[in-house]
Amino acid sequence: MAQHAPKFRFLLIQAFHLSGNTRYQLRPMQGAKESMLMNYADFSHLLTDVAWEVHPGATDPHGNWPVETREEFCIVGASRLPIVKEACASGKYNAIVLLGGGDPGFPEAREIGRRYGIPVTACFSAQLHIAAMLGNKFSVIDLSEAHNMHLCDLVVQYRFKEKCASVRNIHFPLPRPPDFKERPIEDEKQKAQRGEKSEMLETAVAESVAAIEEDGAEVLVLGCSGAFWLQPFLQKRLAELGWEVPVLEGYRSAIEQAKTLVNLGVDASGLMLPGDKPKKWRRKKLV
Amino acid sequence: MAQHAPKFRFLLIQAFHLSGNTRYQLRPMQGAKESMLMNYADFSHLLTDVAWEVHPGATDPHGNWPVETREEFCIVGASRLPIVKEACASGKYNAIVLLGGGDPGFPEAREIGRRYGIPVTACFSAQLHIAAMLGNKFSVIDLSEAHNMHLCDLVVQYRFKEKCASVRNIHFPLPRPPDFKERPIEDEKQKAQRGEKSEMLETAVAESVAAIEEDGAEVLVLGCSGAFWLQPFLQKRLAELGWEVPVLEGYRSAIEQAKTLVNLGVDASGLMLPGDKPKKWRRKKLV
Amino acid sequence: MAQHAPKFRFLLIQAFHLSGNTRYQLRPMQGAKESMLMNYADFSHLLTDVAWEVHPGATDPHGNWPVETREEFCIVGASRLPIVKEACASGKYNAIVLLGGGDPGFPEAREIGRRYGIPVTACFSAQLHIAAMLGNKFSVIDLSEAHNMHLCDLVVQYRFKEKCASVRNIHFPLPRPPDFKERPIEDEKQKAQRGEKSEMLETAVAESVAAIEEDGAEVLVLGCSGAFWLQPFLQKRLAELGWEVPVLEGYRSAIEQAKTLVNLGVDASGLMLPGDKPKKWRRKKLV
Amino acid sequence: MAQHAPKFRFLLIQAFHLSGNTRYQLRPMQGAKESMLMNYADFSHLLTDVAWEVHPGATDPHGNWPVETREEFCIVGASRLPIVKEACASGKYNAIVLLGGGDPGFPEAREIGRRYGIPVTACFSAQLHIAAMLGNKFSVIDLSEAHNMHLCDLVVQYRFKEKCASVRNIHFPLPRPPDFKERPIEDEKQKAQRGEKSEMLETAVAESVAAIEEDGAEVLVLGCSGAFWLQPFLQKRLAELGWEVPVLEGYRSAIEQAKTLVNLGVDASGLMLPGDKPKKWRRKKLV
Amino acid sequence: MAQHAPKFRFLLIQAFHLSGNTRYQLRPMQGAKESMLMNYADFSHLLTDVAWEVHPGATDPHGNWPVETREEFCIVGASRLPIVKEACASGKYNAIVLLGGGDPGFPEAREIGRRYGIPVTACFSAQLHIAAMLGNKFSVIDLSEAHNMHLCDLVVQYRFKEKCASVRNIHFPLPRPPDFKERPIEDEKQKAQRGEKSEMLETAVAESVAAIEEDGAEVLVLGCSGAFWLQPFLQKRLAELGWEVPVLEGYRSAIEQAKTLVNLGVDASGLMLPGDKPKKWRRKKLV
Amino acid sequence: MAQHAPKFRFLLIQAFHLSGNTRYQLRPMQGAKESMLMNYADFSHLLTDVAWEVHPGATDPHGNWPVETREEFCIVGASRLPIVKEACASGKYNAIVLLGGGDPGFPEAREIGRRYGIPVTACFSAQLHIAAMLGNKFSVIDLSEAHNMHLCDLVVQYRFKEKCASVRNIHFPLPRPPDFKERPIEDEKQKAQRGEKSEMLETAVAESVAAIEEDGAEVLVLGCSGAFWLQPFLQKRLAELGWEVPVLEGYRSAIEQAKTLVNLGVDASGLMLPGDKPKKWRRKKLV
Repeated sequence: MAQHAPKFRFLLIQAFHLSGNTRYQLRPMQGAKESMLMNYADFSHLLTDVAWEVHPGATDPHGNWPVETREEFCIVGASRLPIVKEACASGKYNAIVLLGGGDPGFPEAREIGRRYGIPVTACFSAQLHIAAMLGNKFSVIDLSEAHNMHLCDLVVQYRFKEKCASVRNIHFPLPRPPDFKERPIEDEKQKAQRGEKSEMLETAVAESVAAIEEDGAEVLVLGCSGAFWLQPFLQKRLAELGWEVPVLEGYRSAIEQAKTLVNLGVDASGLMLPGDKPKKWRRKKLV
Repeated sequence: MAQHAPKFRFLLIQAFHLSGNTRYQLRPMQGAKESMLMNYADFSHLLTDVAWEVHPGATDPHGNWPVETREEFCIVGASRLPIVKEACASGKYNAIVLLGGGDPGFPEAREIGRRYGIPVTACFSAQLHIAAMLGNKFSVIDLSEAHNMHLCDLVVQYRFKEKCASVRNIHFPLPRPPDFKERPIEDEKQKAQRGEKSEMLETAVAESVAAIEEDGAEVLVLGCSGAFWLQPFLQKRLAELGWEVPVLEGYRSAIEQAKTLVNLGVDASGLMLPGDKPKKWRRKKLV
Repeated sequence: MAQHAPKFRFLLIQAFHLSGNTRYQLRPMQGAKESMLMNYADFSHLLTDVAWEVHPGATDPHGNWPVETREEFCIVGASRLPIVKEACASGKYNAIVLLGGGDPGFPEAREIGRRYGIPVTACFSAQLHIAAMLGNKFSVIDLSEAHNMHLCDLVVQYRFKEKCASVRNIHFPLPRPPDFKERPIEDEKQKAQRGEKSEMLETAVAESVAAIEEDGAEVLVLGCSGAFWLQPFLQKRLAELGWEVPVLEGYRSAIEQAKTLVNLGVDASGLMLPGDKPKKWRRKKLV
Repeated sequence: MAQHAPKFRFLLIQAFHLSGNTRYQLRPMQGAKESMLMNYADFSHLLTDVAWEVHPGATDPHGNWPVETREEFCIVGASRLPIVKEACASGKYNAIVLLGGGDPGFPEAREIGRRYGIPVTACFSAQLHIAAMLGNKFSVIDLSEAHNMHLCDLVVQYRFKEKCASVRNIHFPLPRPPDFKERPIEDEKQKAQRGEKSEMLETAVAESVAAIEEDGAEVLVLGCSGAFWLQPFLQKRLAELGWEVPVLEGYRSAIEQAKTLVNLGVDASGLMLPGDKPKKWRRKKLV
Repeated sequence: MAQHAPKFRFLLIQAFHLSGNTRYQLRPMQGAKESMLMNYADFSHLLTDVAWEVHPGATDPHGNWPVETREEFCIVGASRLPIVKEACASGKYNAIVLLGGGDPGFPEAREIGRRYGIPVTACFSAQLHIAAMLGNKFSVIDLSEAHNMHLCDLVVQYRFKEKCASVRNIHFPLPRPPDFKERPIEDEKQKAQRGEKSEMLETAVAESVAAIEEDGAEVLVLGCSGAFWLQPFLQKRLAELGWEVPVLEGYRSAIEQAKTLVNLGVDASGLMLPGDKPKKWRRKKLV
Repeated sequence: MAQHAPKFRFLLIQAFHLSGNTRYQLRPMQGAKESMLMNYADFSHLLTDVAWEVHPGATDPHGNWPVETREEFCIVGASRLPIVKEACASGKYNAIVLLGGGDPGFPEAREIGRRYGIPVTACFSAQLHIAAMLGNKFSVIDLSEAHNMHLCDLVVQYRFKEKCASVRNIHFPLPRPPDFKERPIEDEKQKAQRGEKSEMLETAVAESVAAIEEDGAEVLVLGCSGAFWLQPFLQKRLAELGWEVPVLEGYRSAIEQAKTLVNLGVDASGLMLPGDKPKKWRRKKLV
């Protein structure tokens, strides 16, 4: 790789930016680019050969709290598209990585990227592709009821239904009005880091084992980005129990998938995501 | 039915409203409510027992032309949600009917409707449910490459993949910049009404026959709302050829489905579309 | 709707009529038409805009007890066909509704109806179509082992396998020789109506919760018509537990589906149910 | 095998018996048992180790012509059940073979057989099981539109959908009122036997090649028993064209399957076909 | 059957032959042909009309212990092919039966057999075909983790995924280095034969009941040939519990399937297993 | 990346090595490592950050010609396993890339790799994973009838059946005895490189267009490694025709997949590929 023209030039786009000092904050919304990436230390080694920037996402497109309902996912997804379009048009990037667990705006962002020949990856989609490389069936460990059902829909849309053993709910919903909770997820992470007992981690272990023993999971995938911090802890705990099961996570998967697509010089099939005035059209599509 | 309290109180919501005298107009954007519904005469008899209103949709959410790309569908979908929410909150309606062929914002609108116990139906979804009542496999007759692929995705999301024989493209794309065309679809309809040869109808007949003979279609569904006018003509032509195949259309299907749901007192499963703070949650989901 | 020409003219056909004072009777076999419909009060409001009659079904085609085995379903199904044919030929009805939980003779009755352009609906089939409108997966709450397996086969024949989470057995078999039981189902209903504990209802609640939590059901469907009385009770109990799950029932579903088909002017695809001398035939069918 | 107690004691039951000198006769309805079996010479070697009898079926249960509609299949199926029951109860047979192409009454006959521990086989079902042993996908060569659709339904009911490449129609409908035809199928067979050109055989060859080249068939199955005579001719013709494809036929397949089941001492799972008062029952069924 | 030219001339080929006095021996590796077949008394009656021989398999192709890993299955499979080829070329046999539970070399052996028009059957494959004749879903009772996963892959390769309810592990791994165990399976069999409690049988009963009650199994299949001895014991125990479920076993199934194929004069489709220079080729294959 | 400890240390293993001056040679069997890789110039840029070596494969394990039948694939697969094992044990590599189009020995090699925590990739498998990232359905362009059917089986084994639109045969079989051909594939490549008309390329273009228009392919994959040279030519030709379809190739896909797996620190799930003495085992597997 040449020193002056890095092979990989990525824009990492957050799902949204919460304004002010909202009590529903999950991650730093400003500061050094590294500080804006949750769990940066877990995957910083994957960015050493990448020239990367972070876009914070649109500000409060849906409200001043994390996204959980379909309504919110739709609004946030739409708010992301101008950012993607501008990034593609800038000529600065050779791939776009959409951060966040539930991939808001992903298919539409891919369509935009296609017009520029720029691949777009997203955390849940990327995890499913990697999971398929490692085992026949995966389960998703995720945070809450509404978010679970959104992920179920994504599994179907992404055509991974056959490979999905289950979506498991550890029931740590993201904080949202009207009944505020004191950022439990960040607390859980810190407990785990201090070697204390984290209820979130314990539940994740229990549901992972149930996914393995009852549902047939051979690989584990983390759903909401609020759960990504679990990866090293969950991997370790399951290994200690004797389960030889890979635990994936979204940021790493999406970054690595972007590298693969850049190296292979591909983005997406123009037959799957045709432009509005394609050169060729087909009489028939088989779903 | 009582005269003063009609059983059915429906709001019909257009996908979008194009402002000004745009050259890309497909239907009247103002005037009497009847005139705002394309092909009103085809289904007016289904509204005689309904107290109904039409909402024109958001104005130019995506641009000043019809929707065709995924990017546009996403933006238009998001723009519809506040309208749905306001309609549900108003207490004036017992069902919402989303007009338009590609169902922008439908799953999210259903989620909103659920919170109020109000069913929401949409044209493509409703046609697929009716089609499943009439035959084992359906094909979709649709207008353009990008729209086709959007419908393919809806078929998968709606879990009708097994029943979809094909999506057939008659290649009459909606008018859009930069290369304006002189409203060909309206012309085609008028030709057909005058008993002249319409290339659009001829192509629809040819693709319908191919869907029957080659793809295994037993029912036909019309994709884009710009193709809904074809229904009586296509049904007649196929019958004349000897094919005993039902041809469906979106407005009728969505209106009738709304009546069914109102009569049965149901809207959608709260397990499929959970609220953000559901009373009960499940450990496991099977996709 | 005109007063003198009701829009809906339905014949409701029972599965069979048991003669004499058989100890295996489940419902009144004569009297006013209302009294011949089980749980009439639950759905009488759906018949206010319908001119309807009830046909009691053939007398003892298989024996003098309720139907449960496949052998009995086949014989009862065949015995229904002349009734359907005569009703269609009479010109008095614009739809036929087949009562009973296991749909004996349904596909064949549809074929007959097709020749006359008259839609035919049936209780289990109709529930599955409505269930598909409300959620991604349904479970069936049903009475006995043999009846369960008959319904499993119907799910496959009706091409709803992908959407069926499970068939759950509450093990209240219908009374039949040689070992007579004192009409337990009617007793259970009366207990529930008096607010007393009904073991049948309790088991239905337990199996419904298991279907939701373990099998992934998002909608519940009642199998045997002997279980239809459970609908309001089961719906209420599950709501009290916090489960936002629709509970369907056969009579309402079949009546409403018939209205939809009449309003849309459709019955069934002639390609799925061709006549013996169809105008057109196809070289190839894809299953 | 002992000489005095033949290992195999089979009753072969025709689908129906047509009375009088009906013009719609397809096969001899009386005479020596060998003469009542169509194409006896093709499979007589498979009966040398079997003590067998033929039952002619019920007389005109549906009318005085061959069966083609679903209505007719249902009526004929029901008419067969008392014959099966009597045969099982007689203690004379250790297997029942249901003759005819569309398997009327087969699942119900298996249920009856189960009560006696006697296996029941049928021509279409047996062909599909043998076909699955020989290739990944089969196509069916069959006679007419309505019969085709009946077979499509059987493929689904028998759970062979994944393996069915297509059902191909050679359009030689069975003779039936009101427009009588002079037994064309028998004529076609005689032409083929005389080495003359048979249009029926030619069409079967053409559709078989289409099934191979276009639909992906690796094995061919004959649908209606009126097409069974084609087997040796079609096999030879395809071999001459260079296609190494097995062509099956119903009588041979059903007889051999019966032998297998007798030798293995099995009939059918009591969990699939439970009796009306089974010793054990299951809370849950997965379809 | 003529005395001098037996209808069936079979070569039964073991998966491998272990040399010397290995401590990992599961069955006699020399002696009379009857003594080389495990559990011969269970199926000797099926060989009375067969002229048969046993080939011991290659000697220690993978090592001096039973096969369990994929690596070992692959090596043993390859080692079997020259034996199959020689047997086919000898002209002495009209069918080849591959012994052993995990079918090493089966697809390749069928390809070789095809060149000679000689059918080849194998124990696991044959059981699945028979199971499909008896019920809608089967479960496999098998010995160990690695062997289970090999069988899961075979289920997929053999295209029986839809019919497989589960593979259940009774965790009696075959003996292998480095940690030798004193032939526990043979001990278990002897205990069962003496009427003593066998832990292996007890676990098989427990897992069979779980397969029936939880997984939906309607038929049971035995995986590893080391488990075939369980058949009569397991069948009896399940019957005593009231479960009317057939329990199959590999040797009987493979022998009977071979007879069927010989009688029908078929081996395998040349389209599924084309030779290297086929007379005809197809432009397109559908998987 | 550090200069002295390259991140990627790969061994590329050929499927086999043909000895002597065989007339059936497809590629150089000795010389510089670059010269042993077919079409090296097409993907040399992907190896610049890899420390790599090539192993020529076993010598003539099956014969002295390229592999095409299943028998040959099995033998070659087995012959590769000691090479993989030795490479893993050497500690020199952090990934193994199996060259060749039909992936002989791949699942077994992965099992071996797992024991060492070393990922193994293969050309066909890797292409399918990349194809799934780019479109909903892919077709395979491949050389010959027997090779096609082998790839069909791999599609099923790899669980990509749902995504495979078709396997298309361009009928350029590899040279093999007894009827030698003068290395036609190399000639075709040279013609294409000289800008002359290559029948092989023309056929590949025609079959690719058929795959797109008729089968629903959105991505194209090359089957046999003898077809990999087509990639740049086929991609260009299809683009010139207006088809925006990615054309993949095996070497690049397998190399890039190996990098992804190394970077993510994963190889394969130990639940899918358990060792012979796993720490934990599961009672139940769902296929």
